[in-house]
Amino acid sequence: MTANLLKSLPEAVLEECFDTLVEAENVTVERIVSHGHASPVSGWYDQPRHEWVVVLKGKGVVAFEHGEEIALGPGDHLKVPAHARHRVVWTAPEEDTVWLAVHYS
Amino acid sequence: MTANLLKSLPEAVLEECFDTLVEAENVTVERIVSHGHASPVSGWYDQPRHEWVVVLKGKGVVAFEHGEEIALGPGDHLKVPAHARHRVVWTAPEEDTVWLAVHYS
Repeated sequence: MTANLLKSLPEAVLEECFDTLVEAENVTVERIVSHGHASPVSGWYDQPRHEWVVVLKGKGVVAFEHGEEIALGPGDHLKVPAHARHRVVWTAPEEDTVWLAVHYS
Repeated sequence: MTANLLKSLPEAVLEECFDTLVEAENVTVERIVSHGHASPVSGWYDQPRHEWVVVLKGKGVVAFEHGEEIALGPGDHLKVPAHARHRVVWTAPEEDTVWLAVHYS
């Protein structure tokens, strides 16, 4: 019935790992674990739903197509409106970065 | 555009503090800060929507009416189905406990 977001991390994070925690009609909650990963340089996320994201551990930088870059550490949270084109340009290379994302419309 | 869940904690937590982070048609995300608080002994939460909750900091114990008690520390998460009667029976008296709750249907 319970589980821990900060334990049971994948041992070797070769790609970003996504785990779905809640999947309901109107909301998805997922854990994302990255380790020095960035989104593909050529690709922007363009999502049909809003996303609220918080960093639980580690550090990352999210860039928006309009130029803004936002650095996030533990506890920092951010709303990404639907269709706001964005990508992760950096995550800490020396540790796992654990994100919690809530997708909703 | 960003804010931090673990900073800007209320200075004196006399009652549990609820801060709404996301309020949309089908989902509410809130931060709850407690400091040695428990739900009123006589009262059970009986919520019309499902709740997914994670402890970000501190410790708490959630009890269900059917008898189960679940201790949660940082990173531990729990789904509380709609109308599952539950209450918080204990939170750490010596530190703030920060919960993140997602209510959805």
